Amino acid sequence: MTHARHDMALEKRLISRAVEMALDEDLGQTGDITTAATIPEGARATAVFQARKAGIIAGLEVAEAAFHALDPAVVFEALVHDGATVPPAANLARVSGNARALLSAERVALNFLCHMSGIATQTGRFVEAVRGTPARIVDTRKTTPGLRAFEKYAVRCGGGSNHRSGLFDAILIKDNHIVAAGGLAAAIDAARAHAGHTVKIEVEVTSLAELAEALAHPVDAVLLDNMTPDQLRDAVRLVAGRVVTEASGGVTLETVRRIAETGVDVISVGALTHSAPILDIGLDFEIR
Amino acid sequence: MTHARHDMALEKRLISRAVEMALDEDLGQTGDITTAATIPEGARATAVFQARKAGIIAGLEVAEAAFHALDPAVVFEALVHDGATVPPAANLARVSGNARALLSAERVALNFLCHMSGIATQTGRFVEAVRGTPARIVDTRKTTPGLRAFEKYAVRCGGGSNHRSGLFDAILIKDNHIVAAGGLAAAIDAARAHAGHTVKIEVEVTSLAELAEALAHPVDAVLLDNMTPDQLRDAVRLVAGRVVTEASGGVTLETVRRIAETGVDVISVGALTHSAPILDIGLDFEIR
Amino acid sequence: MTHARHDMALEKRLISRAVEMALDEDLGQTGDITTAATIPEGARATAVFQARKAGIIAGLEVAEAAFHALDPAVVFEALVHDGATVPPAANLARVSGNARALLSAERVALNFLCHMSGIATQTGRFVEAVRGTPARIVDTRKTTPGLRAFEKYAVRCGGGSNHRSGLFDAILIKDNHIVAAGGLAAAIDAARAHAGHTVKIEVEVTSLAELAEALAHPVDAVLLDNMTPDQLRDAVRLVAGRVVTEASGGVTLETVRRIAETGVDVISVGALTHSAPILDIGLDFEIR
Amino acid sequence: MTHARHDMALEKRLISRAVEMALDEDLGQTGDITTAATIPEGARATAVFQARKAGIIAGLEVAEAAFHALDPAVVFEALVHDGATVPPAANLARVSGNARALLSAERVALNFLCHMSGIATQTGRFVEAVRGTPARIVDTRKTTPGLRAFEKYAVRCGGGSNHRSGLFDAILIKDNHIVAAGGLAAAIDAARAHAGHTVKIEVEVTSLAELAEALAHPVDAVLLDNMTPDQLRDAVRLVAGRVVTEASGGVTLETVRRIAETGVDVISVGALTHSAPILDIGLDFEIR
Amino acid sequence: MTHARHDMALEKRLISRAVEMALDEDLGQTGDITTAATIPEGARATAVFQARKAGIIAGLEVAEAAFHALDPAVVFEALVHDGATVPPAANLARVSGNARALLSAERVALNFLCHMSGIATQTGRFVEAVRGTPARIVDTRKTTPGLRAFEKYAVRCGGGSNHRSGLFDAILIKDNHIVAAGGLAAAIDAARAHAGHTVKIEVEVTSLAELAEALAHPVDAVLLDNMTPDQLRDAVRLVAGRVVTEASGGVTLETVRRIAETGVDVISVGALTHSAPILDIGLDFEIR
Amino acid sequence: MTHARHDMALEKRLISRAVEMALDEDLGQTGDITTAATIPEGARATAVFQARKAGIIAGLEVAEAAFHALDPAVVFEALVHDGATVPPAANLARVSGNARALLSAERVALNFLCHMSGIATQTGRFVEAVRGTPARIVDTRKTTPGLRAFEKYAVRCGGGSNHRSGLFDAILIKDNHIVAAGGLAAAIDAARAHAGHTVKIEVEVTSLAELAEALAHPVDAVLLDNMTPDQLRDAVRLVAGRVVTEASGGVTLETVRRIAETGVDVISVGALTHSAPILDIGLDFEIR
Repeated sequence: MTHARHDMALEKRLISRAVEMALDEDLGQTGDITTAATIPEGARATAVFQARKAGIIAGLEVAEAAFHALDPAVVFEALVHDGATVPPAANLARVSGNARALLSAERVALNFLCHMSGIATQTGRFVEAVRGTPARIVDTRKTTPGLRAFEKYAVRCGGGSNHRSGLFDAILIKDNHIVAAGGLAAAIDAARAHAGHTVKIEVEVTSLAELAEALAHPVDAVLLDNMTPDQLRDAVRLVAGRVVTEASGGVTLETVRRIAETGVDVISVGALTHSAPILDIGLDFEIR
Repeated sequence: MTHARHDMALEKRLISRAVEMALDEDLGQTGDITTAATIPEGARATAVFQARKAGIIAGLEVAEAAFHALDPAVVFEALVHDGATVPPAANLARVSGNARALLSAERVALNFLCHMSGIATQTGRFVEAVRGTPARIVDTRKTTPGLRAFEKYAVRCGGGSNHRSGLFDAILIKDNHIVAAGGLAAAIDAARAHAGHTVKIEVEVTSLAELAEALAHPVDAVLLDNMTPDQLRDAVRLVAGRVVTEASGGVTLETVRRIAETGVDVISVGALTHSAPILDIGLDFEIR
Repeated sequence: MTHARHDMALEKRLISRAVEMALDEDLGQTGDITTAATIPEGARATAVFQARKAGIIAGLEVAEAAFHALDPAVVFEALVHDGATVPPAANLARVSGNARALLSAERVALNFLCHMSGIATQTGRFVEAVRGTPARIVDTRKTTPGLRAFEKYAVRCGGGSNHRSGLFDAILIKDNHIVAAGGLAAAIDAARAHAGHTVKIEVEVTSLAELAEALAHPVDAVLLDNMTPDQLRDAVRLVAGRVVTEASGGVTLETVRRIAETGVDVISVGALTHSAPILDIGLDFEIR
Repeated sequence: MTHARHDMALEKRLISRAVEMALDEDLGQTGDITTAATIPEGARATAVFQARKAGIIAGLEVAEAAFHALDPAVVFEALVHDGATVPPAANLARVSGNARALLSAERVALNFLCHMSGIATQTGRFVEAVRGTPARIVDTRKTTPGLRAFEKYAVRCGGGSNHRSGLFDAILIKDNHIVAAGGLAAAIDAARAHAGHTVKIEVEVTSLAELAEALAHPVDAVLLDNMTPDQLRDAVRLVAGRVVTEASGGVTLETVRRIAETGVDVISVGALTHSAPILDIGLDFEIR
Repeated sequence: MTHARHDMALEKRLISRAVEMALDEDLGQTGDITTAATIPEGARATAVFQARKAGIIAGLEVAEAAFHALDPAVVFEALVHDGATVPPAANLARVSGNARALLSAERVALNFLCHMSGIATQTGRFVEAVRGTPARIVDTRKTTPGLRAFEKYAVRCGGGSNHRSGLFDAILIKDNHIVAAGGLAAAIDAARAHAGHTVKIEVEVTSLAELAEALAHPVDAVLLDNMTPDQLRDAVRLVAGRVVTEASGGVTLETVRRIAETGVDVISVGALTHSAPILDIGLDFEIR
Repeated sequence: MTHARHDMALEKRLISRAVEMALDEDLGQTGDITTAATIPEGARATAVFQARKAGIIAGLEVAEAAFHALDPAVVFEALVHDGATVPPAANLARVSGNARALLSAERVALNFLCHMSGIATQTGRFVEAVRGTPARIVDTRKTTPGLRAFEKYAVRCGGGSNHRSGLFDAILIKDNHIVAAGGLAAAIDAARAHAGHTVKIEVEVTSLAELAEALAHPVDAVLLDNMTPDQLRDAVRLVAGRVVTEASGGVTLETVRRIAETGVDVISVGALTHSAPILDIGLDFEIR
């Protein structure tokens, strides 16, 4: 099931820039002074990435890129693919080459891989919880600054889907926009006039009354904000398939199934990206 | 107590670059199309940052910078300072000015503030847990790529201290370095010869035997890796104040007090930065 | 009518980066050596931007930014607003301040203003040609590398609308995608599975048969490629308002009205951006 | 004849940066979502660049670099060289490799190639018009922001020559400089004192009287601004080969021959770069 | 005399970038940890730049920018201007404001000011040595990587002139070019055909025979490489004012006067920039 | 002896960025116009780097990178290694490949190599002068802006050691910090509270009384500022090996031996980096 997700690969150019930025942070201008002092220049090593716990993997190409940024001759062999669900102690990849490059890039590789796999794993839990319902689990814009594309990719690896990428690629009219525009109708009209024909318009509503008003206008989706399962069920009935329905607001693993069973199309969960603990992955070395 | 921490301020130049990068991510080349369509150009707004839960605040200056990047005329008034412990529903800051700027920068400001406050809050829990013991809580290099300086600052706001900044500013000799260098003595000798006189040398040991061997050489600190409290107590006794002792390895809120009571100087905790959930903070608007 | 367009302002951060890049190109590392040699350091000047021909203006804020990049104290007073239709010899803006800054930034300011106003003017001609029909004139991705956001803004200033911003914000399935995916149905299915719920899907068709096939699937828009007015009229009838219809392919000022009269919703015109001559605008100085 | 031009190649480092910038614009952070959804990861394709109209080609290396930025394994085979004059339907280059890379880079490659070839073709028309006269056709600083080096290269491909690169590499004293410096003599003196011995000095004059005054000072070239052919002829006679003569001001394909026949050395034409329509070039795919 | 030099000011945009780069180097991601620990946040200070030795000053604006990058509220008052010749113990500038900003920017400000003043002072010695002769002292491309514009500005502050800025703004045909082109005549012909009309052509010659050959072609200057004073005198006689004459090659303070007295127009000296010791300047603080 | 130094290699990523920056400076947007005009596109050349004087070499990898930035196919063969002491006329490296790439990168390669070798050579003189004493020669933060990492590497090549990298990686409490903190004890206390356990603390003292006071607190090193050899001897005796002793202040080749013989551990010398003349190295071509 996760297979369909990772056909939308992460671009190599993005990966390369993110890895450079992370290496800059860790190496500064002076570099890895421990390794420079203690590891002979010609030493070789092999190391294996191992999941210490069960989870879903995301970020293997990023980990690979961290090593290649320091030494293009490093050999990185993925043993699973992004999106794979793995048991504890699963070997994920083997990397071998210049020992200095391996040791100096280790932490950057792990920081990406553990963070992204943590998000994929967290997403997988939510996806699993709604299995059998029509609901898609989607992310939000509550992402870690600088890593949005990586986190949205990890959500896909975990079986989730992506909400809009940012403020620029879809219109989402919220309460403040409605107030400022002078009402729901005025806001939607303005959005229609303004938006190109390839831009979808979604409107946030907090009650059935607002929902009914929104449906009187040409919108593509409605965000049902902080509604109870009963309200959501009524909303889905009222919408009757005319537009996409999205449930949102404080969704947890405990509540997500009941929400999904209301028949909403999409459930957005900030906690996929803003509060996922890492997946514990280690890198075990053999130095020669 | 947190007061001593934030005298090491985050540099404005770092903040400004990070905010630019996050705004780029959220605004793309096209900008906030919902706001452009629905918010009149001259509209003004006021909004208040409110903590939805109790916690320790970090990142107010970063939040401020997000608004100023879009409109330097926005007025940002901090109601608490970084490092403050706040109860649920505490108001943290008030921001007012051009409504478009406020709405377009809102998510970037919150993403930084919630992430950093989450780390400060998590740190505060560990610091609280060891209160009365001599142990300092410190972070690791297991940080989110691109945000290390921000996360290390948040750790200080939470009452913790910082381990080295990266691979460049201290020598930490681990197992792989020892193997490659041909033994502990050889590794420390190489480090001494290599390091400038302003660089500290710390050595990772996993047993009392290794510790004894390390202490025979001129090192500044020892990292006691994955030891039990009993082992740590023995290690502290063996060290007898000659060098800094650091306990490390899978430390949790449940285990940290017992570790601290062994008398170690420093306890490093990866989970401060790699797995802290956000602190839930909202921004409540009043549009005019 | 052009008023509704420029509420989607160009972001100041984009403007500032583009202006820096253009100044770098013109000033190099050495700067304006003619001005340094001949203009006394304290000299002041005033200059007026004048349209040498009739047209629609776009880019006044960019021109302003060019002067401010060299001297923030320069005073720039816009006499018309972006989107204004002006006659020959219309004064557009008055700029005054340090004579060196004015002379050194002059060409960069004019290069942006003339290029963007050229596109706005060209767009205005197409918009005028379809006045009274339901068709919107929209741009394409055939833009000048590096200036897409500026050119799309100029299209809006000219009364046009924008197609997607890039490959990332809408799905447009063309012939090659259909072939590779194994047919129209397979391609649309794949797109539906892949796309988030905020992403629109448009499909290119070249015949009524293909159009009929596309309409059997859930798409948001159809691109009617290189069809004759008669074919377009049939297509519009077949679509019957269910999805957005876009006419595309070699549209000129001579053919656009006949196309618009077929009832299509949107007509996309590459020549708005890839072949618009500049609008001739001069800057007339008075040096003191 | 165009052969002598393209020995001054475009530097690969400039090409690579411009291509990155254009790909960023088109791919954003999310990438080509249509291709990701519909094109199988291993699909291969071949495509041929074909000129839809006659013209002069410029930019093949830039097009090549666009594909290589996405996949270094793409094979790009140029069938003509930059500077070649081609008939309609001429095949220009063949590109083959990963189908996703080819489709995702297509528009960037074409945007550069069509824009640059448009300028080369426009330049070629002017060069052709003055054939047999001593006049060289040269460009101006009226270039598209960000693309000056590419446009000046295209001018050379079209058989033209380049005026100065920017404000930094030659002195061109215009009316405003003369006024500010306190007269022509004062301006030239200041320029002489200021300029290094490798910098040429050109002076703009608008009448024979001004020309006579300029020739009394040590200048390298004179810009004869907006003169009639008769005035130009008189000017050329007055100069008598002592300095380079440049005709400038609103030169068109209709007027350029008469200007060239006056005997001026150089004719500068802003329209080479600021108003050249693209050369229509297509990319025809064969997907496997 | 130095007055004429600094009308070619250093651009503020260059200064600002160079200062950012230098501050990044000195502050890293962590900042000035000594100052953060020991200087109270509100402390104010005043400090005075004092020349410890006699010399010529260059770089005061760069020093100022270093402080302003950390705190725009710092007040910087220049007591002399760039290009001034000062005695030992001369006060150069007074800076006051936030004590942390002053202390953290101190070294960057001094590193620029001492380096640039060192070059100005060294240049001044050469200029003084040739006083009364027609020769201009000029720099070379033997500059410190990254600082060319700053060093060329310092040369002007010292009373020298600038040779070409780089490989891009003048043609200088050396021995290797002549060999590759197939002889002097072929090389000059190629250069003439290639160069725009605003580009000067200089040719390096090593004997009177080569000089005679060069003068038979249309060149603007000749570089007389490593000639003795007698040879130079003969060369000047042979040139007879037709082109600029430049003496070059291992020029020292001991030899420069004898070279200048040969009548050459220009003497280029690599040691102005590649081997000038700093001018010792200190910053004396008064902390409050 | 120099062997131990260059195991701390310069990172390839730093080299690559510095070389790009220097090539930008020399090539601008237009490139090497002399070479483009005169060197046939296919011409090949070989060239040899030769030291014109005796010295210590540093920067061969940087020189290599300059050529590779223009043409990755250039073959660069180092004949000595960084840190080697060479006699006059020693051949250092042979480079062969595309003649244009070789000629266009020549100056950048030489500017780095001569500058860095000048520093290594200068360092070597100081190291030689203290041979047989316990003193290490170390650098300071008085480096050329933008080149600190390169200059600190060159110091290591010359047999010296590095002081701290910047303000961020060690605490050095100077007079102004002591005044602002309210005395030596207060300053050291603040530093201890503030600094992480991996950060060393050094204190500047100017008299034996201050030294005695400093030694009463837990510091890692003392900087003995501008003391006479007699004072230094007394200071060393007082310290008695408890902390590192550093002599600093106007150290010259004439005074360094007497300072070293006082028994200090470290002697810091600003002149290693701020006033080292280049080592004269040439590149001799053979063009084919």
